[in-house]
Amino acid sequence: MDEFLKKKSVITFLTILFVVTCCSGVQKAEARIRRYKWEVKYELKSPDCYKKLTITINGRSPGPSIVAREGDTIVVELKNSLFTENVAIHWHGIRQIDTPWMDGTEGVTQCPILPADTFVYKFVVDRPGTYLYHAHYGMQREAGLYGSIRVLLNEGESEPFQYDYDRSIILNDWYHKSTHELSLGLSSIPFAWVNEPQSILIHGRGKFNCNTVGTTTNLCNTSNPECAPYAITVVPGKTYRLRIGSLTALSALSFEIEGHNMTVVEADGHNVDPFVVKNLFIYSGETYSVLVTADQDPSRNYWASAKVVSRNSSTPNGLAIFNYYPNHPRRDPPTVPPPGPHWDDVAPRLAQSYAIRARPGYIHPPPLKSDRTIVMLNTQNEVGGYRRWSVNNVSFNLPHTPYLIAYKHNLLHAFDQRQPPDGYDFVRYNISAPPPNPNATISNATYRLEFNTTIDVVLQNANTMNVNNSETHPWHLHGHDFWVLGYGVGKFDVGKDSEEFNLVDPIMKNTVAVHPFGWTALRFRANNPGVWAFHCHIESHFFMGMGVVFEEGVERVGELPSSIMGCGDTKGFYTP
Amino acid sequence: MDEFLKKKSVITFLTILFVVTCCSGVQKAEARIRRYKWEVKYELKSPDCYKKLTITINGRSPGPSIVAREGDTIVVELKNSLFTENVAIHWHGIRQIDTPWMDGTEGVTQCPILPADTFVYKFVVDRPGTYLYHAHYGMQREAGLYGSIRVLLNEGESEPFQYDYDRSIILNDWYHKSTHELSLGLSSIPFAWVNEPQSILIHGRGKFNCNTVGTTTNLCNTSNPECAPYAITVVPGKTYRLRIGSLTALSALSFEIEGHNMTVVEADGHNVDPFVVKNLFIYSGETYSVLVTADQDPSRNYWASAKVVSRNSSTPNGLAIFNYYPNHPRRDPPTVPPPGPHWDDVAPRLAQSYAIRARPGYIHPPPLKSDRTIVMLNTQNEVGGYRRWSVNNVSFNLPHTPYLIAYKHNLLHAFDQRQPPDGYDFVRYNISAPPPNPNATISNATYRLEFNTTIDVVLQNANTMNVNNSETHPWHLHGHDFWVLGYGVGKFDVGKDSEEFNLVDPIMKNTVAVHPFGWTALRFRANNPGVWAFHCHIESHFFMGMGVVFEEGVERVGELPSSIMGCGDTKGFYTP
Repeated sequence: MDEFLKKKSVITFLTILFVVTCCSGVQKAEARIRRYKWEVKYELKSPDCYKKLTITINGRSPGPSIVAREGDTIVVELKNSLFTENVAIHWHGIRQIDTPWMDGTEGVTQCPILPADTFVYKFVVDRPGTYLYHAHYGMQREAGLYGSIRVLLNEGESEPFQYDYDRSIILNDWYHKSTHELSLGLSSIPFAWVNEPQSILIHGRGKFNCNTVGTTTNLCNTSNPECAPYAITVVPGKTYRLRIGSLTALSALSFEIEGHNMTVVEADGHNVDPFVVKNLFIYSGETYSVLVTADQDPSRNYWASAKVVSRNSSTPNGLAIFNYYPNHPRRDPPTVPPPGPHWDDVAPRLAQSYAIRARPGYIHPPPLKSDRTIVMLNTQNEVGGYRRWSVNNVSFNLPHTPYLIAYKHNLLHAFDQRQPPDGYDFVRYNISAPPPNPNATISNATYRLEFNTTIDVVLQNANTMNVNNSETHPWHLHGHDFWVLGYGVGKFDVGKDSEEFNLVDPIMKNTVAVHPFGWTALRFRANNPGVWAFHCHIESHFFMGMGVVFEEGVERVGELPSSIMGCGDTKGFYTP
Repeated sequence: MDEFLKKKSVITFLTILFVVTCCSGVQKAEARIRRYKWEVKYELKSPDCYKKLTITINGRSPGPSIVAREGDTIVVELKNSLFTENVAIHWHGIRQIDTPWMDGTEGVTQCPILPADTFVYKFVVDRPGTYLYHAHYGMQREAGLYGSIRVLLNEGESEPFQYDYDRSIILNDWYHKSTHELSLGLSSIPFAWVNEPQSILIHGRGKFNCNTVGTTTNLCNTSNPECAPYAITVVPGKTYRLRIGSLTALSALSFEIEGHNMTVVEADGHNVDPFVVKNLFIYSGETYSVLVTADQDPSRNYWASAKVVSRNSSTPNGLAIFNYYPNHPRRDPPTVPPPGPHWDDVAPRLAQSYAIRARPGYIHPPPLKSDRTIVMLNTQNEVGGYRRWSVNNVSFNLPHTPYLIAYKHNLLHAFDQRQPPDGYDFVRYNISAPPPNPNATISNATYRLEFNTTIDVVLQNANTMNVNNSETHPWHLHGHDFWVLGYGVGKFDVGKDSEEFNLVDPIMKNTVAVHPFGWTALRFRANNPGVWAFHCHIESHFFMGMGVVFEEGVERVGELPSSIMGCGDTKGFYTP
């Protein structure tokens, strides 16, 4: 090689090195590997001014955001530094195509990660959009273990809407009691309900009234900077894409920014035919992108507010500051925060649900017919004195050996091999009254779906154990998106109501609300080999049995990694 | 068979049946299997009137007592009903001959037991005496998971001392913060010490001053019957064997019964040459049997009191009622409870240590020479900014794969194969000053002991990180009893001090105290195939690295059960 070529190749090498190392945040057309090193541990945090043992990632709650491009591979090296507690993290909205063992659902797709262990999650984010991650083990999510995932379009591609800046905001509700104590109450006789949360957090910050705590303790400190309100700083005239996700343990929320309209453009990773709202209703497990233009008087700040709806909650609204630059981000707006909609005004929530349609030109068309319809009656029950939630009178619990491993390795004894029912007594069951016989079966049985078939699920809400009461349940499906074919009030009529399904422009989502005394119909293709949870995203409801599991094409699943094992029937040696 | 013989055999059969079923509590010469079904779960308990999430067994803390006869097999079917936490239970003082995998020491002899799992502990109690059980995972012991084991002599055999009744009493100290929060403080920078406990519990009951808690909470209630003082009810004139065990997290205690002498007759399962005390000094992990005769004025009750010694603690004395029948067990004695000895009066504590000798005729004679002497310098250290405890400058931590499994299956990569040092710089190290270089190595290395050899261990105390301060450390050895050969003040001199060892009537124990600035010498035979922890029994000290591990004759260990696996390199399938 002559000197010139040598030099040239050195320069080329250095240039490549520069691009790879210095500019790795910048666009690149090819899929990349994005590596994260996370340590999960307890920290004493005061997100709402009240000091609480919080599960953090690298010292933070919410944890670090994952930002990637479509097709990238995410590698999270997760060290569990809890002392005696296991952990598992679910990548909410990521379908885990070809990697069903990376779904992070304890008992379904993996054994829990033991203290001091490091588990490597590795999966592809195959689709742009706004997603979440959170603990999927016991009720650890509500201890603070959650964060956001933002998957951008490939370089050169563009969204069908315009904005200047992109921001992620997670909403949450916050309890002062430990998850251990809350879990204990839910699984005790007499039943002790978790009750309403103490605070609503906007991106990990809220404000608890410290006066209600005894002054002898130093547990609560209103001037702690950790609970200074979150500031969404905006430049006057600019348009912001706010990616709003909710990971509440319990609460349905209405989010608004005082004096500003929001245009909804994305839901759970899919483009929405844009519509304008003043309040965005958001249920646990959902994500929305809204566009907000900083078009108001720039000499002041504005309140951003999150209010509990669908429950008669005494929890004060969560408040953040919509901060017009260069005003000080801590300067309170001169106004009283907006009170938000009335908690039991269902109409606007239904209206929003109906309004969410796929953006023309971005529709993934649904199959026109389904191969199987499963109607799932959601009831509150009492089994052996324990308060539970059930689907078609089956209250879910997890087996010792995760389903994915049990199915793949034919460990038939690991769980009940009978399938739960595809419906309930449509004729006689009265959804408007408490269950006449609140008894249910507690079972770990699963639904086996024929691979590549089309499945309709109709979630049928009903009255709880209390008269004239029906709750809102956001149901989340792992491993898939589904088309939202329709909503209705009252009892779903298989013959009639399915004729009215929206097959024209249904949105695709991974989480959808079932409104009080109503039904929600969804359709999906059972085309992702694996075992997938489908459950109410209210932490305590799933804990109390409100979920099911689907198996599809498990024979097509590749070899399972030994790292997901160690529980149930999987205690033994492996040869790496 | 003629009618008469038939009848006779039926009667014989019925007689046997009667004896076996009705009188199974009564003496039987053959060893029996004693089965226990335990559920480990959280409960809200108020042992000192302050409500705290407590780890219970079958709803109780202390857990159920195990009462058995020498040679019996104990089977404990343990269900872990914690929500996201693992557990492991150690049978303290039981040598686990032929069953080293049942020692219950997480990371040493087993993987932790996962939530919802049932683990079956099965072992023989081969020797009469007073023992304990407790969690051996993280700092769960101090969350309430502990109890007592009483092993009686075989039928027909008798103790060399007389008593009318036999009672077990466990002493403990109690913290209001969760073990998670305390563990966090110990493993944080800056270091947050656990500080002194809030209460001393006598058999699970203490009394916290609720006035110090804000009245707005209902966390503390002095009239809660759960915190009524424990009553030791006695019949006037009778003699009681009180089996007193300490499972404090931190505190050394002095126990006394107002106006009554106590005759010490047993220590850690071995008969003591009797001596009389007014105060019994007891360190965490120790058990003593004392004889007390109810020989005082029977018209009143007396205080039993447990006071913190060896630390300048503000924790109030724990109080119970020594209740003369038929006085009401809740009637307070008319006197002020005895204040107990001064915390820093070391002389009487040393005197008691010296006084504990084997009862003549019950001596297991020690080998006259040892094959190996390991001197263990106990120092407080600071490693990478973390506060630690070390032995010969090595601060202990646990590997991912338990040692017993790693050794047995030759998984050499599972831990550091180099052995830690057998001594320290005897000449230059000044035990009376803080370590000049407080740095230490954090390691999971172990000591390998040649099988069937005699090992001397000299525990050498030293100054902590604070000037003029040296603490008391009760060291506990798993899998063995050891002879206590001597105690001394100052630096142990291998040549000179070992000449003075008591080889005539040393007591055997499994736990022994090392006094401030002093040394304690012990000897044992490495004749129990297995891997055994040896550590300071102060919960936070072991957590901070104050322990070592011995391996001996692991090649003689039988096949390990799959139930102990599931962590580290043992995630895979087993075929039952």
